[in-house]
Amino acid sequence: MRDEIRQQPAALERTLRQEIKNVEKLKKRLEKNPPRMIVLAARGTSDNAALFGRYLLEIATGIPVSLAAPSIFTLYGASLKCQDALFVAISQSGESTDTNLVLERAKEQGALTIGITNEAESSLAKLAEHAFLVRAGREKSVAATKTYTGQMLMAYLLAYALGAKIKLDDLKRLPDWAAASLKLEAEIRERAEPYRYMRHTVVVGRGLNYANAYEFALKMMETCYVVAERFSSADFLHGPIAMVEHAFPVFLFGPGGVTWPSMQGMRERLDQLKADTLVITDASNKDVAASKRVIRIPAKLRHAGPLPEDVYTPIPYVVPAQLFAASLAEEKGLDPDQPRTLTKVTRTL
Amino acid sequence: MRDEIRQQPAALERTLRQEIKNVEKLKKRLEKNPPRMIVLAARGTSDNAALFGRYLLEIATGIPVSLAAPSIFTLYGASLKCQDALFVAISQSGESTDTNLVLERAKEQGALTIGITNEAESSLAKLAEHAFLVRAGREKSVAATKTYTGQMLMAYLLAYALGAKIKLDDLKRLPDWAAASLKLEAEIRERAEPYRYMRHTVVVGRGLNYANAYEFALKMMETCYVVAERFSSADFLHGPIAMVEHAFPVFLFGPGGVTWPSMQGMRERLDQLKADTLVITDASNKDVAASKRVIRIPAKLRHAGPLPEDVYTPIPYVVPAQLFAASLAEEKGLDPDQPRTLTKVTRTL
Repeated sequence: MRDEIRQQPAALERTLRQEIKNVEKLKKRLEKNPPRMIVLAARGTSDNAALFGRYLLEIATGIPVSLAAPSIFTLYGASLKCQDALFVAISQSGESTDTNLVLERAKEQGALTIGITNEAESSLAKLAEHAFLVRAGREKSVAATKTYTGQMLMAYLLAYALGAKIKLDDLKRLPDWAAASLKLEAEIRERAEPYRYMRHTVVVGRGLNYANAYEFALKMMETCYVVAERFSSADFLHGPIAMVEHAFPVFLFGPGGVTWPSMQGMRERLDQLKADTLVITDASNKDVAASKRVIRIPAKLRHAGPLPEDVYTPIPYVVPAQLFAASLAEEKGLDPDQPRTLTKVTRTL
Repeated sequence: MRDEIRQQPAALERTLRQEIKNVEKLKKRLEKNPPRMIVLAARGTSDNAALFGRYLLEIATGIPVSLAAPSIFTLYGASLKCQDALFVAISQSGESTDTNLVLERAKEQGALTIGITNEAESSLAKLAEHAFLVRAGREKSVAATKTYTGQMLMAYLLAYALGAKIKLDDLKRLPDWAAASLKLEAEIRERAEPYRYMRHTVVVGRGLNYANAYEFALKMMETCYVVAERFSSADFLHGPIAMVEHAFPVFLFGPGGVTWPSMQGMRERLDQLKADTLVITDASNKDVAASKRVIRIPAKLRHAGPLPEDVYTPIPYVVPAQLFAASLAEEKGLDPDQPRTLTKVTRTL
């Protein structure tokens, strides 16, 4: 897992370089027939990448996006009215039975289909009209890391193909920003130590980093067996915050930009409740002073484009979370590469 | 909370009787201009009702449904291409700042708007082109119960207005079925006793009962301060199941019908892991033998129509869950009507 976390800058750089031609081709096709709605279908970590894609695509393109509920197709056998819709299935292995079935049904109903996978020879790559390859190299750890960030990169490229104001030069900085996060490896190992006996936690993210709250929680569930919930700061206030007592551990994603005031407000609320918070942020968010309750990525994740200030933070922000989960698993004496009960490819209907 | 749980059959009967005229009016309008997509916006318990609505509407009408991510409108200020879209905001108080703002933006962009609320004089009732009233009477408990089932009833009526094959005669049986669940009150009080020291749990639901997993978990978070996660049986297998150790408590919604094989498989898997399971089911699911690990609603929740076998189970199935949360709170010496940290109306952006 640690090796694969470290491979992310190179994997991102390679994916961007090798897929751009494919993306430009799709861009031309979409210019002629822009979709009226987008449906993303995925499971597990890939579903968290889809959740990121949902925010990015709606914000950057204005096209309504839905996250598919596979059982509607696989169990209830319903068929949706898919005219002018773009269906995207995301799967590391490309062998997820249910999301492949969603794509197949959508194709029958006239939707344009895209597959995003790490495996060129997979069923998904063959089934989708356009296949995009996350060129992360074989992922051996059961806990997915480099394919998650690779799938997020593909979401940026899909937004670009749909006409969003994404500059390829900004995307080219993502490998360096992920590398900046990797510099925190030794620091995070130390930070994880006091959490050795943590049995449950909440991860809070908002907007473009909401998906990272899901992904950080999933990594802690899979590799550390911690009961990890995940909420947006708004949803957390609508009930679940009642759980919080003294020393209750909460992790927050805190980039600068439009989501910061609500995350800041949440942090102050949690301070009043004497909860134990740890904020992941970067050098450009001046509102967070260095402290043992802050993990700060040593780079300013700023860009000059018209998109929101935090638009390129999600990939570099998840890297410290991945490192934290790996360190905590080791701290708990667990092997993050071989979580109990799980196998690499999960097939569900 | 207990009083309001008990009021549900009467509230459902009243809502159905008083709103049907309003629904028939909408049905006529929608026949002329059927929407191409539906977006549901809500927070907290209302968002769980929206999650139910998402499954019901896609299954019964074939129109793609999305659950709105309010921050895209409220924080990022994005505007979506809403032509031919139907936007529905659901809010008990009708005063949720963020979901009202979503509806306002959608209206500006040309979407048809519907508000579902318990308060006739609320901002939402005034803002929406069509307002539907959940006639549950004033809800005093912070933990919402009767407004949740009222909102679910409105989802059936909305599906009906959109041309789904829902028979009003079947809907008229829902108050009786909720009443059948209420007969379990004394039994559930006893069942909750051994869970007194439970600190964390997972609730599993699938398809039409997936939203109930969210709602049962939310009720336990709010009133019992239990860290309660919620998953579909498929998502649970994609990672989180690694958390499960001996005696780990898991609650399952187990109606008969298309979701049962996957819930049954999940239950067997959990038995192998020596987890502690409790299944909520009804008298028509013959696959579940009576045992101390089963709560069985003493009625056969069957209908003869063309819709899936489990289509009318979600309202009667959530009642035992509500009773369980109220009983567990009492068992833990907590007041379910006044959870710490919370107030009845939560305003977020």
